[in-house]
Amino acid sequence: MVDMETIVSLCKRRGFIFQSSEIYGGLGSTWDYGPLGVELKRNVKEAWWNTVVRQRGDMVGLDAAILMHPRVWEASGHVAGFADPMVDCRKCKQRFRADHLESLEKCPECGGDLTEARMFNLMFKTFMGPVEDEAAIVYLRPETAQGIFVNFENVRETMRKKLPFGIAQIGKAFRNEITPGNFTFRTREFEQMEIEFFVKPGEDEEWHQRWIQDRLEWYRQYGIQPEKLRLREHACDELAHYAKACTDIEYEFPFGWSELEGIANRTDFDLRQHAEYSGRDLTYFDDQTQERYFPYVIEPSAGADRATLAFLIDAYHEEQVRNEKRVVLRFHKALAPIKAAVMPLKRNEPRIVAIAKELADNLRKCMSAMYDDTGSIGRLYRRQDEIGTVWCLTVDFQSLEDQTVTVRDRDTMEQIRLPIAEVPARLKEQLDNAC
Amino acid sequence: MVDMETIVSLCKRRGFIFQSSEIYGGLGSTWDYGPLGVELKRNVKEAWWNTVVRQRGDMVGLDAAILMHPRVWEASGHVAGFADPMVDCRKCKQRFRADHLESLEKCPECGGDLTEARMFNLMFKTFMGPVEDEAAIVYLRPETAQGIFVNFENVRETMRKKLPFGIAQIGKAFRNEITPGNFTFRTREFEQMEIEFFVKPGEDEEWHQRWIQDRLEWYRQYGIQPEKLRLREHACDELAHYAKACTDIEYEFPFGWSELEGIANRTDFDLRQHAEYSGRDLTYFDDQTQERYFPYVIEPSAGADRATLAFLIDAYHEEQVRNEKRVVLRFHKALAPIKAAVMPLKRNEPRIVAIAKELADNLRKCMSAMYDDTGSIGRLYRRQDEIGTVWCLTVDFQSLEDQTVTVRDRDTMEQIRLPIAEVPARLKEQLDNAC
Repeated sequence: MVDMETIVSLCKRRGFIFQSSEIYGGLGSTWDYGPLGVELKRNVKEAWWNTVVRQRGDMVGLDAAILMHPRVWEASGHVAGFADPMVDCRKCKQRFRADHLESLEKCPECGGDLTEARMFNLMFKTFMGPVEDEAAIVYLRPETAQGIFVNFENVRETMRKKLPFGIAQIGKAFRNEITPGNFTFRTREFEQMEIEFFVKPGEDEEWHQRWIQDRLEWYRQYGIQPEKLRLREHACDELAHYAKACTDIEYEFPFGWSELEGIANRTDFDLRQHAEYSGRDLTYFDDQTQERYFPYVIEPSAGADRATLAFLIDAYHEEQVRNEKRVVLRFHKALAPIKAAVMPLKRNEPRIVAIAKELADNLRKCMSAMYDDTGSIGRLYRRQDEIGTVWCLTVDFQSLEDQTVTVRDRDTMEQIRLPIAEVPARLKEQLDNAC
Repeated sequence: MVDMETIVSLCKRRGFIFQSSEIYGGLGSTWDYGPLGVELKRNVKEAWWNTVVRQRGDMVGLDAAILMHPRVWEASGHVAGFADPMVDCRKCKQRFRADHLESLEKCPECGGDLTEARMFNLMFKTFMGPVEDEAAIVYLRPETAQGIFVNFENVRETMRKKLPFGIAQIGKAFRNEITPGNFTFRTREFEQMEIEFFVKPGEDEEWHQRWIQDRLEWYRQYGIQPEKLRLREHACDELAHYAKACTDIEYEFPFGWSELEGIANRTDFDLRQHAEYSGRDLTYFDDQTQERYFPYVIEPSAGADRATLAFLIDAYHEEQVRNEKRVVLRFHKALAPIKAAVMPLKRNEPRIVAIAKELADNLRKCMSAMYDDTGSIGRLYRRQDEIGTVWCLTVDFQSLEDQTVTVRDRDTMEQIRLPIAEVPARLKEQLDNAC
């Protein structure tokens, strides 16, 4: 299996992911998506949105603000309970999560004495308005979920939705983690792809199982190797305070099996809390049974950054081709940041260059495509393989004669010739069929 | 012209935009995009990204983190200079922007005495890590632009870009405005769509003009009425400290002509500052002239929220149809949140309902579509017009005989019959041609 160092290095070298504010020495565990990374992550989010919102009749989308009324976080339990226990070393002054240490007696770094454990709230806080006092405190949301719960009634009413239905959202969330790490796997600023699916109480367990299977299937559908995915059911003592059950979809990262997505049965906890704290009636009237009740909620909660990282790691392959190492990212066609690269066999032959540039322009009208003439064809193929470009199109002397180009497939490395005029439509068709 | 009250009301009633945390009384000038709003805004951002990144050979994308190293904001001038002058009324305690008051002598609300003006920094600050001290202060970025400048060298090198080329980014930014307002026009949390286009000094003025025309054309291309758009060149005394020239694209909102997008010539100010503050060489080596220099930067900076608002307002039309008022949102096809709505003529005729639901399912595979049977056809048409749905498809008794449906065009209200099996491909083709 590829190690993280290789992935981090490739990400930086090829423009997928850079350390944030790198010219200033970086900001702890914060990362920027470069030109290829932003396309990959956009494609991951688009694939998720298409699958869970646009292709389903029982789902709608939402995009709530990051800054919310502070009462939201009192109702949700975050102000009181979203905290980790922390200890300091009195000698070397380092800080640790108490629940990550094997012993609370001595510092694992220097052997010094540790302080008592103190609870540390993970929400970032800031002040809205000109005065920095208690009344002005707002939090950067630690999860997107609450934006959905507080809008439940507005969405249900305006969209005339009946149970079961869900609300999906993609957006940034922030947690002031004491120990972030593993590249983009755990960061203080991250992007969630969350669904809150509202069901009739009693139907929650069945829907929980359906969503676990649906979400597992999604990762497979977009190319993650099945043997790298597994389900892990939470034990009773690790469930969050709002959850009746939770199953994680885990991926085998180079640093071990870790959570890609958690699918929790949140019961009616959140709607009940918000009804109580806001004084609003957030029950649902079931016109079939003529009852009023709080819906139960199934929550498939995925991380856009860790999904992107998993697709990247899983796509990574090294192989021997004619005694040379070939590194290739075998992205699903829908996820590949660049679909087609056009290259001239000779960059000092103006007729060849003109055809190649025109073809790249035509491809750009319907897909992410690039023109590249900064090396020999062999070298350009290797570069495009390393960023997972689906097709390499080479314009050569034969192109001048018969208006065809070679089309090289990333995975099979097979080359066929196609008429230049047909190339955009033919590739577009393959992309459309791939989703 | 439509007034803001009508727009705000329609947005809330039909699920475009809700007040954030509304069940808790709302959070000042913060808004959530509902099911239709999120689709509209996604389409606006996608149209921008396709135009400025994917369809151009001289642009690449980026997605930098919101939290950046605090030195970034020292270099950019934001820590020292991003502030508004503010006065308080000693009597009623209200606070005002000094530069918005006609006189600094008396409170415009109660006539009380005002304090001296004090500068108030507009950056939201928070603390990263467990200790709330000076060393832990980080800011929520007040503009996405700096994420591009600090990554300039990484992007140029990994993508082998030569001048002129640009970097584009969509992302949230935050400004602790004293007086936000006009619905989603000016909010403390907002989303920018920014380009930094790097050019050789001396070519900056020509590129500035080209970008002004390109960006103006984009709004027209996506349907904004040309007479509602105008250019406004900044006078010398209103230019930002980094700008040599700036032209705004303004839209005639119901509250007056206001900025949609500013296109500034930022010169080499930012790269020079970051080079100085970081100690890194951020000059560009021009292999044609064999010179090293700081590129000049043209910055077309648009607001995703205000663009969305402008597209919404501009799409709004009221007309008389058979003595009834018809409200219709004439969105460009690519921007419309819902492309097609399928409705059964009779919702208690199972054969008709089955066909309608199957057609909606098939449409969802390639576009945003919905099934609606919650009213009479006339009522459903009015509802779909009011949210700008491009086509209404009605399944009726004739459909059972000849497998056709009526397709009603939103703008002309003309109806034609099409074979059901051909509908998805025919509509998809029209959408593809519209972009």
